[in-house]
Amino acid sequence: MMNVGIVGISGYSGCTLLELLLKHKDVRVTYVSANNTKGAVSEIWPHLLGETELHCEPFDLTKIADNVELLFLAVPHTVSMQIAPKLLEAKKRVIDLSGDYRLKNTEDYEKWYGTKHLDDKNLNKAVYGLPELFREDIKKANLITNPGCYPTSAILGLAPLLATHGKEVQSIIIDAKSGVSGAGRKATLPFSFGEVNENFKAYKVLNHQHAPEIDLYLSKITDKPVSVNFVPHLLPINRGILSTIYVQLNEKISLEEMHKVYKNFYKTEPFVRLLPLGSQPELKNVARTNYCDIALATNPNQNLLVITSAIDNLVKGASGQAIQNMNIMYGFKETESLL
Amino acid sequence: MMNVGIVGISGYSGCTLLELLLKHKDVRVTYVSANNTKGAVSEIWPHLLGETELHCEPFDLTKIADNVELLFLAVPHTVSMQIAPKLLEAKKRVIDLSGDYRLKNTEDYEKWYGTKHLDDKNLNKAVYGLPELFREDIKKANLITNPGCYPTSAILGLAPLLATHGKEVQSIIIDAKSGVSGAGRKATLPFSFGEVNENFKAYKVLNHQHAPEIDLYLSKITDKPVSVNFVPHLLPINRGILSTIYVQLNEKISLEEMHKVYKNFYKTEPFVRLLPLGSQPELKNVARTNYCDIALATNPNQNLLVITSAIDNLVKGASGQAIQNMNIMYGFKETESLL
Amino acid sequence: MMNVGIVGISGYSGCTLLELLLKHKDVRVTYVSANNTKGAVSEIWPHLLGETELHCEPFDLTKIADNVELLFLAVPHTVSMQIAPKLLEAKKRVIDLSGDYRLKNTEDYEKWYGTKHLDDKNLNKAVYGLPELFREDIKKANLITNPGCYPTSAILGLAPLLATHGKEVQSIIIDAKSGVSGAGRKATLPFSFGEVNENFKAYKVLNHQHAPEIDLYLSKITDKPVSVNFVPHLLPINRGILSTIYVQLNEKISLEEMHKVYKNFYKTEPFVRLLPLGSQPELKNVARTNYCDIALATNPNQNLLVITSAIDNLVKGASGQAIQNMNIMYGFKETESLL
Amino acid sequence: MMNVGIVGISGYSGCTLLELLLKHKDVRVTYVSANNTKGAVSEIWPHLLGETELHCEPFDLTKIADNVELLFLAVPHTVSMQIAPKLLEAKKRVIDLSGDYRLKNTEDYEKWYGTKHLDDKNLNKAVYGLPELFREDIKKANLITNPGCYPTSAILGLAPLLATHGKEVQSIIIDAKSGVSGAGRKATLPFSFGEVNENFKAYKVLNHQHAPEIDLYLSKITDKPVSVNFVPHLLPINRGILSTIYVQLNEKISLEEMHKVYKNFYKTEPFVRLLPLGSQPELKNVARTNYCDIALATNPNQNLLVITSAIDNLVKGASGQAIQNMNIMYGFKETESLL
Repeated sequence: MMNVGIVGISGYSGCTLLELLLKHKDVRVTYVSANNTKGAVSEIWPHLLGETELHCEPFDLTKIADNVELLFLAVPHTVSMQIAPKLLEAKKRVIDLSGDYRLKNTEDYEKWYGTKHLDDKNLNKAVYGLPELFREDIKKANLITNPGCYPTSAILGLAPLLATHGKEVQSIIIDAKSGVSGAGRKATLPFSFGEVNENFKAYKVLNHQHAPEIDLYLSKITDKPVSVNFVPHLLPINRGILSTIYVQLNEKISLEEMHKVYKNFYKTEPFVRLLPLGSQPELKNVARTNYCDIALATNPNQNLLVITSAIDNLVKGASGQAIQNMNIMYGFKETESLL
Repeated sequence: MMNVGIVGISGYSGCTLLELLLKHKDVRVTYVSANNTKGAVSEIWPHLLGETELHCEPFDLTKIADNVELLFLAVPHTVSMQIAPKLLEAKKRVIDLSGDYRLKNTEDYEKWYGTKHLDDKNLNKAVYGLPELFREDIKKANLITNPGCYPTSAILGLAPLLATHGKEVQSIIIDAKSGVSGAGRKATLPFSFGEVNENFKAYKVLNHQHAPEIDLYLSKITDKPVSVNFVPHLLPINRGILSTIYVQLNEKISLEEMHKVYKNFYKTEPFVRLLPLGSQPELKNVARTNYCDIALATNPNQNLLVITSAIDNLVKGASGQAIQNMNIMYGFKETESLL
Repeated sequence: MMNVGIVGISGYSGCTLLELLLKHKDVRVTYVSANNTKGAVSEIWPHLLGETELHCEPFDLTKIADNVELLFLAVPHTVSMQIAPKLLEAKKRVIDLSGDYRLKNTEDYEKWYGTKHLDDKNLNKAVYGLPELFREDIKKANLITNPGCYPTSAILGLAPLLATHGKEVQSIIIDAKSGVSGAGRKATLPFSFGEVNENFKAYKVLNHQHAPEIDLYLSKITDKPVSVNFVPHLLPINRGILSTIYVQLNEKISLEEMHKVYKNFYKTEPFVRLLPLGSQPELKNVARTNYCDIALATNPNQNLLVITSAIDNLVKGASGQAIQNMNIMYGFKETESLL
Repeated sequence: MMNVGIVGISGYSGCTLLELLLKHKDVRVTYVSANNTKGAVSEIWPHLLGETELHCEPFDLTKIADNVELLFLAVPHTVSMQIAPKLLEAKKRVIDLSGDYRLKNTEDYEKWYGTKHLDDKNLNKAVYGLPELFREDIKKANLITNPGCYPTSAILGLAPLLATHGKEVQSIIIDAKSGVSGAGRKATLPFSFGEVNENFKAYKVLNHQHAPEIDLYLSKITDKPVSVNFVPHLLPINRGILSTIYVQLNEKISLEEMHKVYKNFYKTEPFVRLLPLGSQPELKNVARTNYCDIALATNPNQNLLVITSAIDNLVKGASGQAIQNMNIMYGFKETESLL
């Protein structure tokens, strides 16, 4: 059994990590921390009463045992870049679920996250933890920057197209809808029940920090820079992201052919399910799973491809994907604790 | 006091009509009918206990008193076109909330509604009841075809642009999200609580019967045929439609200028609220109102305009708009019972 | 038109007061305040855009015009007792929606609200604003203490029984379930969407500050002290309280007779609807109304009476009842702006 | 690996059975049936795409392979009693999740289920599958009648008290609140999203068919007949039952002592979690688990004990408990696939 730790156990991602790792055959969680709370994990998360005896306290590098090999950072951005360098120096491997290491340019980081980057040194070493695209790099990485929830759904939805028909892509619109856990667990008025329930809205229209992340990694799989139009919306549900993606192509497309392209691209992937033509993904079908469900439709008269892509933002969009990355890094069965 | 009737009181639109008309200063509901139920309206709708003594029974033309001047048809499509001709012959005016008279071509109707049209004669006499565009025609109409809920939000969101910059419009995508009451009140598995709650999905992708309706009426306000890409989604809430509309333009746009165009277009409209730049509509802000809230955003680098448009599908998207039409037809204050 | 003010416009009760008063024929809101926010009311509450030009700022007695006759205090407890004495001294009448003046004993107040009472002088002058029981006192009151939401549903459910069969009552259990707006509009983790949605729990079991309020006013209508067992629960909905009340009687009861007692007790009340035997109240039937819906059932073998009582906590449980009180105080039509 | 079958795969309980059994180390599902649908299970339940290759067709005894040892009947009442006798005759063991074999008296069955019982012969052989009370009988049973969801939460909440202090119990009130999946998966108006969402109500007040079931099994663990007052309510959530149970005792009780009694009673039970004094169960803490969380509180002045008991109605209240029973019957680890 390998020992791992979770930094940020009081958030939804930290909790989901623990839930999944408690079922993992090869891994044991021996360290958990949180900054604003301490005590038994089963007091913070009463649903885990009887399932864990772990206690948490504020993060303290010196309290992490030598035999802890890997740490998951399930903390807000800006916190990760303060902790990660120390852990890496102490020869721990790190999977960071925050946004701190996703953009590869300190100016972009400052522009989109509103604060200076503090760990320029590791920024370019961090490997983007999207296994379907970067599995080989993940194997050897010491620092994984786990993808954002929106980017996971968007990039998985677009990757087969851009990898094979990048030149024909004229413009991309991503109309994404997320449940509230995507925003973390926090005490703010906009995320109070009375404001979210029976409501729906767009926010950060064309101005969300996940847009440059999507651009960056899509550009890596095609031969020209990609610049998407990204509009997120807030759904009155706990979990799940559905991205409806509109791609304007500059030539005719055949739906059946495109379906084959996608089928082929993901044929060995355990967590991407391409739906049969005519079906559409539903958030309840991916809830509490590591799956990404994808469907295709077209308006051939206008050369428009409509891709719908659904994930659970806390699993494939965060903690499940982080564990998938760990499984790859250590040669565990890739689906362990995830199927 | 003018006497009116509601055909289809057991549905959500019929009920909303009654709720609003009970507050109307100039109108009294004296006839209500429903096909599958009979008895006191307050038994069908217990929240109206003490508010109405009306009883309902199956529709029967001979039971409608001579002094009933107008009938609202809040029935499923195919039913309206069987009832409306008889009412018109009996010299009643009719406001039909179904889809039966919206498309102006029996082939289109058959294609999208899957059944033959039975009232060709009145099809072209029916006036499309969207006051912001067709107020003058509404005044004189004997048969109003009340707009669909999706088309109301989409057309109001697009009309100022198409009326003033139609030539520059290259393509239109409407990503619409609706609460469940848009589908009516019915006992089907896909609309059961267990299937809809904590779920979200697209449906009838690029294939919804409201698309040709949007095309038809948008074409009337610009000088070329319009063909939108329309993708509806089902929200786990009772009421409301938010349409996020993406317009690809073939030249640069200024957000501020476009905002002025919209401001000007709707400046005398009592029920369209153009939000200040930077704000976004939320469904809770239009719930149980006859408002349509609209906001604009742009990606100037790609000549993309993003219009968000929110209504309550049962009010501005159905019953409220029907009453607004009635107010216009009879010279009542246009906002009576709606503000 | 009479001028009134609302202190605490940024909360749900303050907002509901304004929504209702905007429709009131005899009253105009000319003053609104909030402590943590300022600016146009339509910025705090965007759904009121176009409906009001009011601006709010922090409460300041000197800014309230002489012609403002009445103030509604829709503020948290402890705030009211600091403001009310000054307003009364300035010859304003006051309707307080907080808990500050409900218990008539400073020790009880300290015990249940955890802080010393600061306005002993006015405590006993405050009239409990439950019109169905204290209408005559309300007419003459200068300070109304508006009932709590739970007590309104509980007392209206129990009053006819206690007024007529008080001696036979052996014990009372109130199992109450409330939507989240009962807790006010606040940014706390327990009321965040992620914690409340798809959840349900009891809280403050046998230990809620509304229990002594219920005891106090029930005792006034029977001839012995009443001590209820009160267990509140949190429902994942925005609005509404359903109280299921179990009364152990010490002799046989006839359901039909009891129904007559209730029917008679409330026969002239505009806002209490006794449901027919066999029906049960539902929260959706009282949502956004000032009604209290009540039903009765019995287990005759065990002399048990089961009373179910439903209100909208923001209307009959707060703002609607406050306006009903105002209507009584000033001789307006009691149902004005409420039906 | 043992082979088992599920009759009624298209319902929520059938689906939950399959989800759990797919993770079971000792069991393989090789037969599934449903009456109104056929085809791939992953078409009926798209979330299981890629997880199972099972196909279903209408129930047919002759199609069940000889090596299928056990069948779960996840069908509506009246269907089970037609199928079970045939399966028993064919030497299969049966776990029936319907209500058909719970009441031990055909007159009671007819009274509460409204139809004649068709399998008198097996009625008294069926063992009530509540492991915490009847584990020894379960081991040897060929026919298990799996407890109802409400009875599971109620009986587990009351058993320690009745087993130890039965004589002191004067009366019992069970105020239960259930999510919609308790009613099964069906297309009816009262369970449509629009009717359930943002609503709450009591139903079948003192008149629900689970009341005699609770009475029957509680009577078995105390020395006098028990007759509870049972009032169920419908919660606008998918899963979970919280029962708030009020027990009037005829002598003083100590909360601490009662807590010890419960602690002791359940000390070896893997699925009952007695919460620390001061805590309360929440439905989200038992969702998708086989746990029953229980808490105690008292009003010592009135000798009233308040027990709150929470389960997931589809797991401990149905399918999880059925698997727990199977594990006991076959000597598998009792928690297999459930923890």
